Amino acid sequence: MSILRGRFAGAPHALMQRFASSLDVDLALLSFDLDGSIAHAQMLAECAIISSEDAALIVAGLREIAQEWRDGTFMPTDDQEDIHMAIEARLTEKIGEPGKKLHTARSRNDQVATAVRLWLKAALGDLLDELRQLHAALLQRISEVGRTLMPGYTHSQRGQPIWLGHHLLAHAWALERDAQRVRAALNRTDLSPLGACAMAGTPHPINRQRAAELLAFSGVLDNAMDAVSTRDYQIEAISACAILMTQLSRMSEELVLWSGAEFRFVRLPDHLTSGSSIMPQKRNPDGAELIRGKSASVFGDLQTLLSLVKGLPLAYNRDLQEDRRALMHAVETTTQCVLMMRHLWRDLSVDRERFVLDLDGDFSLATEIADHLAKNAVPFREAHEIAGRIVRWCDEQGGNLKLLTPARAAEFHPALGGDLSRLLDPEQAAERRTSFGGTAWSEIERQVSVLADKIGISSTFSA
Amino acid sequence: MSILRGRFAGAPHALMQRFASSLDVDLALLSFDLDGSIAHAQMLAECAIISSEDAALIVAGLREIAQEWRDGTFMPTDDQEDIHMAIEARLTEKIGEPGKKLHTARSRNDQVATAVRLWLKAALGDLLDELRQLHAALLQRISEVGRTLMPGYTHSQRGQPIWLGHHLLAHAWALERDAQRVRAALNRTDLSPLGACAMAGTPHPINRQRAAELLAFSGVLDNAMDAVSTRDYQIEAISACAILMTQLSRMSEELVLWSGAEFRFVRLPDHLTSGSSIMPQKRNPDGAELIRGKSASVFGDLQTLLSLVKGLPLAYNRDLQEDRRALMHAVETTTQCVLMMRHLWRDLSVDRERFVLDLDGDFSLATEIADHLAKNAVPFREAHEIAGRIVRWCDEQGGNLKLLTPARAAEFHPALGGDLSRLLDPEQAAERRTSFGGTAWSEIERQVSVLADKIGISSTFSA
Amino acid sequence: MSILRGRFAGAPHALMQRFASSLDVDLALLSFDLDGSIAHAQMLAECAIISSEDAALIVAGLREIAQEWRDGTFMPTDDQEDIHMAIEARLTEKIGEPGKKLHTARSRNDQVATAVRLWLKAALGDLLDELRQLHAALLQRISEVGRTLMPGYTHSQRGQPIWLGHHLLAHAWALERDAQRVRAALNRTDLSPLGACAMAGTPHPINRQRAAELLAFSGVLDNAMDAVSTRDYQIEAISACAILMTQLSRMSEELVLWSGAEFRFVRLPDHLTSGSSIMPQKRNPDGAELIRGKSASVFGDLQTLLSLVKGLPLAYNRDLQEDRRALMHAVETTTQCVLMMRHLWRDLSVDRERFVLDLDGDFSLATEIADHLAKNAVPFREAHEIAGRIVRWCDEQGGNLKLLTPARAAEFHPALGGDLSRLLDPEQAAERRTSFGGTAWSEIERQVSVLADKIGISSTFSA
Amino acid sequence: MSILRGRFAGAPHALMQRFASSLDVDLALLSFDLDGSIAHAQMLAECAIISSEDAALIVAGLREIAQEWRDGTFMPTDDQEDIHMAIEARLTEKIGEPGKKLHTARSRNDQVATAVRLWLKAALGDLLDELRQLHAALLQRISEVGRTLMPGYTHSQRGQPIWLGHHLLAHAWALERDAQRVRAALNRTDLSPLGACAMAGTPHPINRQRAAELLAFSGVLDNAMDAVSTRDYQIEAISACAILMTQLSRMSEELVLWSGAEFRFVRLPDHLTSGSSIMPQKRNPDGAELIRGKSASVFGDLQTLLSLVKGLPLAYNRDLQEDRRALMHAVETTTQCVLMMRHLWRDLSVDRERFVLDLDGDFSLATEIADHLAKNAVPFREAHEIAGRIVRWCDEQGGNLKLLTPARAAEFHPALGGDLSRLLDPEQAAERRTSFGGTAWSEIERQVSVLADKIGISSTFSA
Repeated sequence: MSILRGRFAGAPHALMQRFASSLDVDLALLSFDLDGSIAHAQMLAECAIISSEDAALIVAGLREIAQEWRDGTFMPTDDQEDIHMAIEARLTEKIGEPGKKLHTARSRNDQVATAVRLWLKAALGDLLDELRQLHAALLQRISEVGRTLMPGYTHSQRGQPIWLGHHLLAHAWALERDAQRVRAALNRTDLSPLGACAMAGTPHPINRQRAAELLAFSGVLDNAMDAVSTRDYQIEAISACAILMTQLSRMSEELVLWSGAEFRFVRLPDHLTSGSSIMPQKRNPDGAELIRGKSASVFGDLQTLLSLVKGLPLAYNRDLQEDRRALMHAVETTTQCVLMMRHLWRDLSVDRERFVLDLDGDFSLATEIADHLAKNAVPFREAHEIAGRIVRWCDEQGGNLKLLTPARAAEFHPALGGDLSRLLDPEQAAERRTSFGGTAWSEIERQVSVLADKIGISSTFSA
Repeated sequence: MSILRGRFAGAPHALMQRFASSLDVDLALLSFDLDGSIAHAQMLAECAIISSEDAALIVAGLREIAQEWRDGTFMPTDDQEDIHMAIEARLTEKIGEPGKKLHTARSRNDQVATAVRLWLKAALGDLLDELRQLHAALLQRISEVGRTLMPGYTHSQRGQPIWLGHHLLAHAWALERDAQRVRAALNRTDLSPLGACAMAGTPHPINRQRAAELLAFSGVLDNAMDAVSTRDYQIEAISACAILMTQLSRMSEELVLWSGAEFRFVRLPDHLTSGSSIMPQKRNPDGAELIRGKSASVFGDLQTLLSLVKGLPLAYNRDLQEDRRALMHAVETTTQCVLMMRHLWRDLSVDRERFVLDLDGDFSLATEIADHLAKNAVPFREAHEIAGRIVRWCDEQGGNLKLLTPARAAEFHPALGGDLSRLLDPEQAAERRTSFGGTAWSEIERQVSVLADKIGISSTFSA
Repeated sequence: MSILRGRFAGAPHALMQRFASSLDVDLALLSFDLDGSIAHAQMLAECAIISSEDAALIVAGLREIAQEWRDGTFMPTDDQEDIHMAIEARLTEKIGEPGKKLHTARSRNDQVATAVRLWLKAALGDLLDELRQLHAALLQRISEVGRTLMPGYTHSQRGQPIWLGHHLLAHAWALERDAQRVRAALNRTDLSPLGACAMAGTPHPINRQRAAELLAFSGVLDNAMDAVSTRDYQIEAISACAILMTQLSRMSEELVLWSGAEFRFVRLPDHLTSGSSIMPQKRNPDGAELIRGKSASVFGDLQTLLSLVKGLPLAYNRDLQEDRRALMHAVETTTQCVLMMRHLWRDLSVDRERFVLDLDGDFSLATEIADHLAKNAVPFREAHEIAGRIVRWCDEQGGNLKLLTPARAAEFHPALGGDLSRLLDPEQAAERRTSFGGTAWSEIERQVSVLADKIGISSTFSA
Repeated sequence: MSILRGRFAGAPHALMQRFASSLDVDLALLSFDLDGSIAHAQMLAECAIISSEDAALIVAGLREIAQEWRDGTFMPTDDQEDIHMAIEARLTEKIGEPGKKLHTARSRNDQVATAVRLWLKAALGDLLDELRQLHAALLQRISEVGRTLMPGYTHSQRGQPIWLGHHLLAHAWALERDAQRVRAALNRTDLSPLGACAMAGTPHPINRQRAAELLAFSGVLDNAMDAVSTRDYQIEAISACAILMTQLSRMSEELVLWSGAEFRFVRLPDHLTSGSSIMPQKRNPDGAELIRGKSASVFGDLQTLLSLVKGLPLAYNRDLQEDRRALMHAVETTTQCVLMMRHLWRDLSVDRERFVLDLDGDFSLATEIADHLAKNAVPFREAHEIAGRIVRWCDEQGGNLKLLTPARAAEFHPALGGDLSRLLDPEQAAERRTSFGGTAWSEIERQVSVLADKIGISSTFSA
């Protein structure tokens, strides 16, 4: 076939067709492309650029092709230039000459840009749905197991005792900002390029706003050259995904560690772990590991898009065809990872007693001593120094803070001379931190309520 | 000195101090850190955690240190752990024991996070200012030279005649979305982590909202652990910069090409070009080349942050110290590039006659023929084929569309049998594209007016 | 089916199976996995770990499966854990109990690592073959059209006249270093991990050297834990590809520019260009654009692998499964791009007269003046200054160096007072640069001969 | 000053000077640039292009400038175009007219390329030295604490008992391949571009081989255009660093985990840990965390270089100036990280008893059961299933393999009916793995000896 080649003496080389093909990823656009063409044809008729009769034939033909696609009886092939030309060819096969009018007042540049934006709108919508469900699951787990004592870590070292709910809320708030970014990316995606044509617009009296309305776009991209050449909305979408994946990767790292023999804080369910081909005992946290690993490939997608676009003069360049593989992979992978993370957190069990004994007298209570001294008029920097020396002494004795008798404590500072048991009680230590956003349970309940409101679910702590 | 080392038997190794130092980048934070400490001390006093007298001494001391810093008489060194400890040490040197109380109810984790956010707020504000000026300069140039005829390119090949203003507006609209993204990043930066302490909050009765108010933050980060461990706002800021840099890199590529001997469409001013050490004739577009090159290093910064954060368990990890070098480089580099791009476009001259002759009869007018046929009831796909064959014929004769006499044209299609001079006039071709966002001059004036409104400047086309 | 799940109470979740599947990329490994298993079984029998009869059955069974795979009658599915388990299941289905002995003294960790290394050895071999053919094609074109005059560019501005052959040799030498890097990556790939088992070796008396020999590996990885956890050879291979792609992207950029209307230096053949759906005249350099674009996705692959591996504790982690998608994409894409570049350069035509007139009197001859003065005892820095002033004067007159009459030249410097025509002849300027590696034709012939030797083809300039 | 601007009407803008400056990184090149200029002058005199007297003056002048630089009395400033022009200006100030002859037959393009390659040769040499010392330290620690029992991990879950020495050797072997890559990068760096001039060579009768010899380069880059435009050797060097950093990041992750309260396997020395400003007990593994974090910034450097070079036409483009910041940062950071890793491993202490009790009856011995059955004629796949069921049963009883009485074991399989104590002894399990590269101590000693030979140190196990 010699599509678009009136100007050429020869046919394209088979090598060229294969090399230039993006059929595998383009098939994901097919139904959106049909939607775009249907709207275009309707608009052309409304603007009297083609006849209503032609438009009706075109629309009916495209709808039939959509059905054939769903039925598996229509399948573009690599020798048809691309899916857009394949659809036009099939349309003309079905309805004859009117099919050849469909491409009036548009170019593949704006046509493809329209289909990609429609795809991305749907995909980002799916991602937001999954995010909301992950949020709901996390808040649910906070109400169920959030009041589990654990060490809060910095530098992967025990810092201060906290409630698990406090830790999970840190993730939940971060995910809420991720949702904001995904929504922002969606908003900048939700603009119609249709009618921009090659990059200069068209002399035909089209109505771009009408076409946008038919496709449920919330607006129209103002400049035709911008409309076909920009990929900023794609990079923004992948970037939002990449930032979200950093968050999921951090949660995954924790699940990997916490499910290991040394932490043994959570137990992943059998149906979300995998065995080893050689070591019969293994229950591997593959889901969490894979999320962590997949974050890297989304970063790669982002880098691909940035490098791809760099230094390209306006307007469209064929390089840009490489955008979709990265875009689709990034958004779909991220959505799947959100889903997997929800299942992991929903179905794992928490060993609620794991750290109770471990934290008794643990050095992670040293801040209690410093804060206690500070409240008793010892300048904090000195209080910190004293508490540090206490830790060092206990450590050198090979023990922990339980070695600290009232008498020994008073030697470090008189204000420590009383009963320290309440001061050094891990739960009390957690409950004492009632500052806004602190780990005290009251603050956890407050945050859950605020977040539930934001996300539009009812609080898991409702009376 | 043995800061923070009550718990340690020995001093840190000099190697460790050097390796762990981030003094060079931290100095940029110094004045913001002082602001944060002043607000913290005021809040502590208002909440009766320290006395008003102590707070007054602390604030006065910090203000003196700020003055010493501006005067160059205060300079932290690497053996002082970091700038935060250096300031505290200097403060205690000046005011004695009250200085040791400053760190009550805070940790370096929230302290540094506060300083970085204050820095970034200021830096993104500067970037937005520069963006606005670049926008103003571009709109100014559109009113001055926008009505210059040029080929619109796709695939770096001539596509259709357009006005330069249409091309520049494509950039201007893309930059407007960049400004939106920078503003969004700024909004998510503008939240106070102060009072989060290590990651669990504090038992001291602090008022985080008040501290935030004193620092002109628009809100408070809800969760203490989130507040000290997240870097999402930094990655978002770098990401917004990276996307903006793709845009500047595309503008730069055009300036490099257009100022070359083959395009010779623009001439950069002497004061923004450089010579060669060996080739006496050279006038190199170094400004544009450097912008294009610097875009790559901002991409590298983004990748650094993503990889840095990947897989880190909560809360703070020392890895995160590496964030600032990349963050500061990215935002400052981007701001400088926006500034340079403004100077380039403001001071270059456009050869307004460059393409006038070149476009006479040029094949980039072939779409006119196709559209003309389409308007005369030839289905567009056939019209395209006919126009393609006309081009091929002219090309084979070694000429362009001026070879197309009415008689020869009519052989291709009867509807082409009249006077083609108006149809094939390049200016008419541009002016014919009056569709929304098309290249017709009326559309350019409309867009300039809309954009000027958005940016908050008066249109360069005001009556 | 409950493969490897003796230890589990429940079956894996369908979601988990889907999420963890890498079936699409693993199919590329299938035949290599069969080779690895056949060698493993033979070695086990030679070491008397399984009986010769069992080994014979296993080998025969695996060969039948290989045939079934080629015939399309064997196809692993997602519910079979992975292709390795699917093969083992099919084997046991065919030969019964002996099939269950195949996995003695190995783990999937070393099994998969073996298959990936075998795949990569083959793939890098293919890449080297393609590189050699590209080299041969470039040297061929140098002998055909290398003696075409053109401006040598720096900063995309004309610098000095050169022969096209000089320019093409710059690419050829860079590609020669790329081939060196690919070979180095291949050498570090060519080591057998088989027999490392999970990461600790095995108590079975295996012979790893023998298995390696059967698979034509050139050596054995010494440490079992290293053997299953390292991905350095993959990153090195992708890195070699990425560097090679930068080179191809630079060649592509030149083809895009040179085939445009402003340069019009080369003409791509019809069969390697594409049309536009709307602009009938277009002959787009899609092949070159796509190579340029694909370079970005190979960079993304590299970033993926680096981020993926970062911070993973030893030994194998499931994250690493994500390696193959990036690895295979990078190597295959690079190989295809090398192939496409060969076709582009082989089939394009060069306009050998394009620059002849253009360079007559062109400012790119200014270095001739400076060098001439330097040879006449004017210090080079002064000579450069004088030549610069000459250019400026000509430029201000609106002309080029042809304005420089002997009389006017002598005013700039007496040594310029003679006949300048030979000095300013572009061909002479190119031929004058006889320094080692300079653009003089004799140097081009010398380099072609040296390179041809290195690559192992006969020089295209042989007498 | 108006350096190189004979051709310009106006001076460069201050903004342009600032924007184009790379003074901060170029100062690292200064002494190498002087070396390059001295060699160039000597060669020019030997080839009679300048007089011996002029050359002697130039060389003496440059040596004085080198001394001034070391003394701190010579310091280039931003208004001198760059350090190369600053040196030339200073030279001419000192010795007059002969100084203006230094730039005969060279361009800044080859001059800078020469200085960068000389810098990189030295820097990669330093890196190799550090790597050798890290290797020596690791082998030393293996002889000291290598025979410490620990769980070998896969998926961060306990897999099989191993010796620590086996684990450390995995790192040592990986680092040996890193050293190979660094050496390869050094070899491709060690080629002289000097004399390539702008990109076309020179008409002056220079001797590039002689200049290369004077600078101790091992060869000459053949093609002048290639010599000034390629950055492949830089990307290769950064790539070698990035791969090495992945290795160091994995070692760092382990140190962070192992030094935490849950693993408590190693204890970092006080002088290589840091405290917290708020939590008095903290001993943070900052050195390891920072290495892990710095790996990300080296990945960013690599991405910068790849994106930077992408799509640049030949030959030099000013974009390339951005290469040095990334190159220097990558190589220097990597070298410092290797040094820090050596100190960490050299000075940490290992808790040699940590895992002894923990591994008694641990499920990580399950492979012993499977292998034992396999040796007793049970097909491995069945043996694996049986061992898995044993683990499941013990797990459901809330215990470990110590629950497995001979009687209970025999119920799972008759071959398990004897005394299992030796089979399930963790040390025996490690020692049993005598396969090539297995964890048995004999294999560790063998590997240390082989590696020590490769690295050129004497084995830490020498008789």
